[in-house]
Amino acid sequence: MRETDFVGGFAKGLKVIEAFGEDKPRLSIADVSKITGLNRATARRCLLTLAELGYAEYDGKFFMLLPKVLRLGHAYLSATPLPTIIQPHLNRLSDAVGESASASVLDGTEIVYIARASQRRVMSINLMAGSRLPAYCASMGRVLLAWLDEAEARSVLDRTELKPRTPFTHIEPDHLMEEFRQIRKQGYAVNDQELELGLRSIAVPVFDHRGTVVAALNIGAPVAKVEVKDLIQLMLPEMLKVQSDLRTMLR
Amino acid sequence: MRETDFVGGFAKGLKVIEAFGEDKPRLSIADVSKITGLNRATARRCLLTLAELGYAEYDGKFFMLLPKVLRLGHAYLSATPLPTIIQPHLNRLSDAVGESASASVLDGTEIVYIARASQRRVMSINLMAGSRLPAYCASMGRVLLAWLDEAEARSVLDRTELKPRTPFTHIEPDHLMEEFRQIRKQGYAVNDQELELGLRSIAVPVFDHRGTVVAALNIGAPVAKVEVKDLIQLMLPEMLKVQSDLRTMLR
Repeated sequence: MRETDFVGGFAKGLKVIEAFGEDKPRLSIADVSKITGLNRATARRCLLTLAELGYAEYDGKFFMLLPKVLRLGHAYLSATPLPTIIQPHLNRLSDAVGESASASVLDGTEIVYIARASQRRVMSINLMAGSRLPAYCASMGRVLLAWLDEAEARSVLDRTELKPRTPFTHIEPDHLMEEFRQIRKQGYAVNDQELELGLRSIAVPVFDHRGTVVAALNIGAPVAKVEVKDLIQLMLPEMLKVQSDLRTMLR
Repeated sequence: MRETDFVGGFAKGLKVIEAFGEDKPRLSIADVSKITGLNRATARRCLLTLAELGYAEYDGKFFMLLPKVLRLGHAYLSATPLPTIIQPHLNRLSDAVGESASASVLDGTEIVYIARASQRRVMSINLMAGSRLPAYCASMGRVLLAWLDEAEARSVLDRTELKPRTPFTHIEPDHLMEEFRQIRKQGYAVNDQELELGLRSIAVPVFDHRGTVVAALNIGAPVAKVEVKDLIQLMLPEMLKVQSDLRTMLR
C-alpha cells in the first residue's frame, strides 16, 4: 500500500469513535486527545465532524455518541451472513438448555461477540454483539486459538497481556498451549470460573462445510446451577447438534 | 462550524462503511463509488484505508467488512446507559408475555433498535441492535413521532417516502397525524399488519424521570397467536409496569 492511498483523517476519526466506551460515555476534546494520542486540534476537528454528520452531539463541553453510530456496526452485521445464520440456532439452543448462548470470532488477541441469545443475566459483564473479551481466558477464545496453527496461537499469547482475572485463571503460555491441544482433541473447551467468579461455560467451534473454523459458540451458566459435568453431559450434545446443522448450512 | 473544522476524509470514509449492508456484503471499488457518489479514486483510498486498519478485507476484486467494524457501533452501545438499563427489563417483559420485546430511538425518519429480547422469530426481518425501520409504519416509530411537536412530526413525514408495505399500511399524512394525536392521548400505539403481513405489535413511550420521551418499547407477535385486544388487555399492563420502573431509573 502506498502512503498516498491512506486517508489519514479517516483513520484518525475511527480512533476518535473508539475512544468512547462503557466508562467513557462523555468526552471532552482534551479527553479524546489523551485517549487517542491525537493532538487537540485533530481530536477537535474529528469530534466536530462527527457532530456535524449527526453521529455525536456536543453540549459545549462534552461530546456524546448518537444512535447513528450503530449504522456502522450494523453495516458489518447485516452484510455478514454469519450472525444472521447463527442467531436462530442460538435462540433454540438457549431455550433448550435454559442458559445464555453466544457466538464470537477472533479479532487480534480478543474475541468479539457476533450474536447472543440471553436468558437471565448471569454475568456482571454486559455482553452483546460487538462486546469484546480477551481470547486467552474465555471458552470461545480458547476454542478459536486451539484451531489456529500452534505458532499463530503462541504469537497471539505473546501479544496478550496475560493476567489472572480470577484466582482460577491459567495464564502460563505453556499451560495454555497444552490446553489448546487438549481442546482440539476433545472438540470443546470448558471454562470453570477463569473469566469471572461464579461463571462456567463450554464452547465448541463452528465449522463451515469445508471444515474451516468460522466462529465459536458457547453456553454460559452460573456455578450455583451447573457442575462442569452438566456442561459436558447435558449441554454439549445440544451444542454438537447446532454445530452439525451449521456445518451443512455454511457454504 | 467553519469549513476547516470538517475532516472531509473522515466523512467520506464513514459513507463508505455505510455502503455495505444486507444485500451488499461484497463491494468493488466501482460499486462503492456508485452507492456513495464518491469518485473512484476516493472510494478506493477509503477502502484501502479500511483494509489497512483491519476493518475490511480485500480479495483483489471485492471488499468485505470485518468484525472490527463492530467496535464502532459498540462504542455507542457501551457508552450509552440506555440500552444497558433497558435490556434486563426487555428480557423480563419478553419472558412474561412470551413474545419478542424491543426498544428503539428515532434517527431522522427511521427508528433504530437499541435493544431486543427475542423469543422465536416471528418476522421475516432480522432485527437486532442497529437495525432500522421507517418510523411512519412501525408501532415504536409512531409512538416516537406522536410525542414530537406536531410540526416536527409533520416534517418527518414530509421527508419520508410514504409507501404501503402491506395492503393495511396507512400512508396519508393527515391520517397519520390524526393517529399520532390518538396515540398520545391513549398512551400506546397498536400496529396491525401495517409493517409486515402476519405481524401485530404494541408500543409505548419510555420516559425519563423528567417526563421526556427517550425511547419507545414494543412487543411484536404473530397474528395467528394474538388478537389486537390481547395486545391491549394482556400485554399493555406488563409494558406499563416496565415504563413505570424505567421512569424512576432514567435520571
